[in-house]
Amino acid sequence: MPDGKNRQILLAARPVGEPKPSDFRMVETAIPTAGPGQVLARTIFLSLDPYMRGRMNAGKSYVRHLEIGEVMTGGAVSQVQASNDPRFKPGDIVEGRTGWQDYAAVDAGEVRRIAPDLAPISTAVGILGMPGMTAYTGLLNIGQPKAGETVVVGAASGAVGAAVGQIARIKGARAVGIAGGPDKCAHVKRDLGFDECLDHRAPGFAEALSKACPKGIDVYFENVGGPVFEAVLPLLNPFSRVPVCGIIAHYNATELPAGPNKVPVLMRAVLSNRITIRGFIVFDYADQQDEFLRTMSGWIREGRVKYREDVVDGLENAVEAFRGLLRGRNFGKLVVRVSPDPTAAAR
Amino acid sequence: MPDGKNRQILLAARPVGEPKPSDFRMVETAIPTAGPGQVLARTIFLSLDPYMRGRMNAGKSYVRHLEIGEVMTGGAVSQVQASNDPRFKPGDIVEGRTGWQDYAAVDAGEVRRIAPDLAPISTAVGILGMPGMTAYTGLLNIGQPKAGETVVVGAASGAVGAAVGQIARIKGARAVGIAGGPDKCAHVKRDLGFDECLDHRAPGFAEALSKACPKGIDVYFENVGGPVFEAVLPLLNPFSRVPVCGIIAHYNATELPAGPNKVPVLMRAVLSNRITIRGFIVFDYADQQDEFLRTMSGWIREGRVKYREDVVDGLENAVEAFRGLLRGRNFGKLVVRVSPDPTAAAR
Repeated sequence: MPDGKNRQILLAARPVGEPKPSDFRMVETAIPTAGPGQVLARTIFLSLDPYMRGRMNAGKSYVRHLEIGEVMTGGAVSQVQASNDPRFKPGDIVEGRTGWQDYAAVDAGEVRRIAPDLAPISTAVGILGMPGMTAYTGLLNIGQPKAGETVVVGAASGAVGAAVGQIARIKGARAVGIAGGPDKCAHVKRDLGFDECLDHRAPGFAEALSKACPKGIDVYFENVGGPVFEAVLPLLNPFSRVPVCGIIAHYNATELPAGPNKVPVLMRAVLSNRITIRGFIVFDYADQQDEFLRTMSGWIREGRVKYREDVVDGLENAVEAFRGLLRGRNFGKLVVRVSPDPTAAAR
Repeated sequence: MPDGKNRQILLAARPVGEPKPSDFRMVETAIPTAGPGQVLARTIFLSLDPYMRGRMNAGKSYVRHLEIGEVMTGGAVSQVQASNDPRFKPGDIVEGRTGWQDYAAVDAGEVRRIAPDLAPISTAVGILGMPGMTAYTGLLNIGQPKAGETVVVGAASGAVGAAVGQIARIKGARAVGIAGGPDKCAHVKRDLGFDECLDHRAPGFAEALSKACPKGIDVYFENVGGPVFEAVLPLLNPFSRVPVCGIIAHYNATELPAGPNKVPVLMRAVLSNRITIRGFIVFDYADQQDEFLRTMSGWIREGRVKYREDVVDGLENAVEAFRGLLRGRNFGKLVVRVSPDPTAAAR
C-alpha cells in the first residue's frame, strides 16, 4: 500500500489521434472509505483494452464517454479490504469496473466474486472475463460457425482473437488468424492451435489470406477493420456472417483509415453474398454469463483453450502499456499488476 | 400474334453506365415449338425490374449474368398456347422467367399457374409476384418490425417499397416512405396510407427525414442506396435492422455514387448501435411462397394492401420503359403489355 494514498490516473485531455502521455494525469488522493452497501477494493490486476480509447472521445457511443478529470475507466481484479455488504468479507477476490487506481469504494452489486481455485485470478479480466465473453457470445450467437466452415479473426494473439479461433476449432471450423509479425503468428499456430495465421504486415498479405482460405470465409469476426477487412471482403462466402465487436484500426484515427472505404463496394458484397453484418457488445449477452463461465472454464481445464497474458508491473506504467496496446505492441492479454497477487503462492 | 413471328429483345452490348438503346437489339425469329415436357407460352405482361440492370454486367453476382446475344431476362405472365405436360392446357395463365419476347417454349416445371379470379393477372409479377414477395420476406424475416417501431423504405411508390410500407403498417409500425417528387409522395401517403413520405430531391431532405422519424429508425429496408442511405444512417436506433435487397442507385454507376461512402463511418454506426445489415434475395425464402400468396392476397381482398401499376403497351417500347425505370420515371409497378390480357373482359 503506497503510503496510504490512492493513486489515480485521470483523463487530462481528449486525445487527438494516438493518446499522448499528457492526455493522462496521475494524482494521489486519500484512500476512500466504503459507504453503506459498498466494499473497499484494492486493485490487483487492471485490465487494459482497446475499447478504452473510444471512451476518451466526446460524442455519442454505445456507452457514455469519460469526462475530463475523471478516473480512467477499466475492469480490474481486486481484493476486498472492507465491506458494508453481507455478501463480501475482507480478503475476497472480486472483479468489477473499478478503474485505473489503487483503491475504489464501489457498490457491492457492481462487483462479482472470483473463485481463486478455478483459474489464476487475472483471467477474470481476460479469457474468463470481458474479452473471453466477447469472443464467446459474438462468435456463437452471430457467427454461428459450423463444422468445416472457415472462421477468420484479426488480432489473433490478442485476448478476443485468441479465444475466437480456439472456440471456432472446438466447433469443428477451420480457424485462420491474422496477427502483426512472425512471433505472434508462430504463437497463434503453435500454442493456440489455429490452422493458419498470417502476418498482415507481410507483403502479399491479401493473396496469402486467399490461399489460406481455399473455400472462402464463412465467419469474419471483425475486431480490427482497415486493410484486414479489405482483404477479407472479397473472400466472404454466400450467407457468411460478420460479428462486429470493435474496430481497433479506427480508435486512434483522426482521418479515416485505409480499408474498403467505399460503402457501395461493401453493400454490393452484402447483397451478392447475402452477408450478415451485425454489431454487438458483450453486455448485450449478459444473461449468458453463467453459461460462458461454465463452458469456458471447462475448456481451459481440459486444455482445449489456452491463453497468454502480457503482465506489466506498476500502475505508473499503465499509460505507456496502453499506448503500446493501441500500436499492437502487447503479446497476449494486457494487464497491469497494480499490487501483488495474494493468491499466486497458493498455486 | 404479330405475323407468326417471335420478337425478341437481346442484350447487344454491355452498358457502360446508363443503358443506351444500342445496348439492346430486337430480332424476329420463328415462334418456337414446345418440346417434350414443355409448354409454349405467349407473353401477356412482361415485368421490368431494376435487378435486370445487374444481369447486363459481366462479373460475379448472386445469379449468372446475361451473355451478349442472349434474350433479356425477365419474369412474365403468359398464356399457354400448347402444352406437352399434363399439368397445363392451352388457355392457362402462367408466370415464369420467360424473358423479353413474344413467345417462349419452357419446361413446364419452370412456370406456375396463376388463378385469374384471385386478382388481375398482372399482379403475378407485381404485388403477388417477385416484388411483393421480396418486400414480404425481407421485411418480416430480417426487418422484423414491431408495433410502434419506425420503418423507412426508399422508392416507396415502386413495387417493392409500396409493399414494404403497407406491410409495416399492418404490423403496427410507423411507415415512412421516400420517393422522387411530390406526386409520388402524395400517392404514397394518400393511396398507400404511409404515415409520411419525403421527397429525396427536395432541399433539406435529411432534416425532413429526421423530423419524420422523431423516435429514430428501427428498420431501414435498403433498396436504393446513395444519399438516402446517408440520411438514414445517423437515425438508426440501437438494435435496428437493415435488410438489403438491392441498391438501385448503384446499378448504373460507373463511378461510386454519393452516399455514406466511407466504410469506417458505417461500421462505427453498426457497432455503436448494434445494427444488423443483411443481404437477401427473394429466392432465399422460396419455401415461404405459399404463405406469402395466401397472406398477401388476403390483404389485397380486405383492402389493406393497395398497389399501382404503370402499364406500357408494346414490346417495342420495353427498352425505353426500362431506361425510364432506372431513372425513376415509372409510377408504380412497371409492366409491359406485350399482348392483350384475355382475362381483362371477365372482370
